Amino acid sequence: MSTLEATASKITDQPIIDQLIEHTCAEMEEVNKLLLSRVGSHVEMVPQISNYLISAGGKRLRPMLTVAAALMFAPKDQQHISYAAAIEFMHTATLLHDDVVDESDKRRGQQAPRKIWGNAASVLVGDFLLGQAFMMMVEAGNLEALGILSRSAAIIAEGEVFQLSIAKDFNTKIDDYFEVVKAKTAALFEAATEVGAMAGGANSAERAALKTYGAQLGIAFQLVDDALDYGGMSGTIGKNVGDDLREGKMTLPILHALQNAADADAQFVRDNLGDQGANQATVEKVVGILLSCGALKTTLNRAREHANLAKAALEPLATRNGAQILIEIADYCVERAA
Amino acid sequence: MSTLEATASKITDQPIIDQLIEHTCAEMEEVNKLLLSRVGSHVEMVPQISNYLISAGGKRLRPMLTVAAALMFAPKDQQHISYAAAIEFMHTATLLHDDVVDESDKRRGQQAPRKIWGNAASVLVGDFLLGQAFMMMVEAGNLEALGILSRSAAIIAEGEVFQLSIAKDFNTKIDDYFEVVKAKTAALFEAATEVGAMAGGANSAERAALKTYGAQLGIAFQLVDDALDYGGMSGTIGKNVGDDLREGKMTLPILHALQNAADADAQFVRDNLGDQGANQATVEKVVGILLSCGALKTTLNRAREHANLAKAALEPLATRNGAQILIEIADYCVERAA
Repeated sequence: MSTLEATASKITDQPIIDQLIEHTCAEMEEVNKLLLSRVGSHVEMVPQISNYLISAGGKRLRPMLTVAAALMFAPKDQQHISYAAAIEFMHTATLLHDDVVDESDKRRGQQAPRKIWGNAASVLVGDFLLGQAFMMMVEAGNLEALGILSRSAAIIAEGEVFQLSIAKDFNTKIDDYFEVVKAKTAALFEAATEVGAMAGGANSAERAALKTYGAQLGIAFQLVDDALDYGGMSGTIGKNVGDDLREGKMTLPILHALQNAADADAQFVRDNLGDQGANQATVEKVVGILLSCGALKTTLNRAREHANLAKAALEPLATRNGAQILIEIADYCVERAA
Repeated sequence: MSTLEATASKITDQPIIDQLIEHTCAEMEEVNKLLLSRVGSHVEMVPQISNYLISAGGKRLRPMLTVAAALMFAPKDQQHISYAAAIEFMHTATLLHDDVVDESDKRRGQQAPRKIWGNAASVLVGDFLLGQAFMMMVEAGNLEALGILSRSAAIIAEGEVFQLSIAKDFNTKIDDYFEVVKAKTAALFEAATEVGAMAGGANSAERAALKTYGAQLGIAFQLVDDALDYGGMSGTIGKNVGDDLREGKMTLPILHALQNAADADAQFVRDNLGDQGANQATVEKVVGILLSCGALKTTLNRAREHANLAKAALEPLATRNGAQILIEIADYCVERAA
């Protein structure tokens, strides 16, 4: 294969997430500048903690979705930049608070901020970022978009309280689980694509399509996350595997196993759910049970269904700029767990 | 004295806080209805925790200030009701998060919610209330008022992070202390009166006057709180006295003592500041030191100065409906520590 062929094939084979990054990179540079400019404070812990999380990266999937949704149409001013930055600040605030809520030690592959600066600072800097997110939205001057974001802020929090209240509750129904997923994860994805479409000047049908796309993608994304917490389809035991087990989270893999595993296996899951000290051997045995009763496969099948709904929502807009990337991103979100 | 005279004199002697309650009671009933209607959720902990704090009362000083500011002019629609409710939700969210930050056991004379429902629920329900506050503001439809509230949300959080970062820091300057006070307390008082004036249709000079009134009243209020945490002028040791000492807060009474008390006394304060296990005898000795070196008197004198600035700001509006009540409320805020 010649160098030219290799290059051509490299472009074609470029992973879809890299295509999304490339497609949105000029705008995301503006978003990043805006984010950095808005965490400035003479109170050192504010930029320290914010930058720690912002530079640790993560893929910035949510603000990229906002930008990509806007680019499908014709964004005129900088609204899509402000909206994308506000979405990322809301997400970062959620991460800071979640770490406190879950008593997590790790975040984005490094120490959780609360382990370095403490719970108090994590709560307060989260509040600061939430305030900044709303200030940016106010400056962008669109009341309707502000309504969408403030509503999702309330829904996300409500969903997390619900998740907390059903932890270790063996009466939890699969519908309860989906309610949590829609609130704690899908609500922000949905807001991200809907405000992006608004900033692009989408008409109401187009906006509804992007809103559905975001919501369904968010559900698929969380289902996959919940499968990955038990190693995904390969059952690979990585560093964070078993966190949900220790926290007693009633995720779909667990709910499926409680209903479908052999009695002794279901009892083993029940006995160890919420045991903060569950060791590697216990986690491995639970993963084995989830694999053998089909819990991980079922979870990923459900994720695939929602990814397909996300793709279907974009079908009528398939010829729009960048639409194919968003369509394939739905596959990517599921395939990362294969 | 006849019954009639007694009644008349009772009205005249009615404590000013009761006059404020009476002056705003029709509107506050609407505010309360709105608050209760906005904490509804099938997720039981959301209304449970919210109502626990909302019905525990507190005086609702901040939303009453919003209503009273509006009533000085001619509020047309229900904006002042929405703004007042949003201010109270923001305040309640702050209380929930503060209890987690300060690891408090008590709030409004009863167990802190975090002692009943845990830190995680307190953080998340605080987030929910913040989201609801912004939703109400969006529904009220005034972008400028939304800007004022979102800015104060960020300022309050930033001020609390600053307070946290200077805890037990003996290099703290009196200016640092005032910066914390302005951010963590005065910012919300200032927003409360400013958005109230806006809802009433005040012109820009009137709005500026109310904004200054709120800011100065807020500073006075916090200075008095910080003196009361050591028993106020009487040095009475009530149930929460000494909390700030145990948390290592660098409040004005402490900063004054460190600079002005006899060497051995200053050393005693330094040695015990931030000692979470400080016992009654230690607290009493610190209170004695603060009384004898004039720290509490100085703090209350500074509070008086700011209360006077609050009153002066309202002078040009002294003939407006209810202005005298707001003017006297400034005295009340200082006198409660006498």
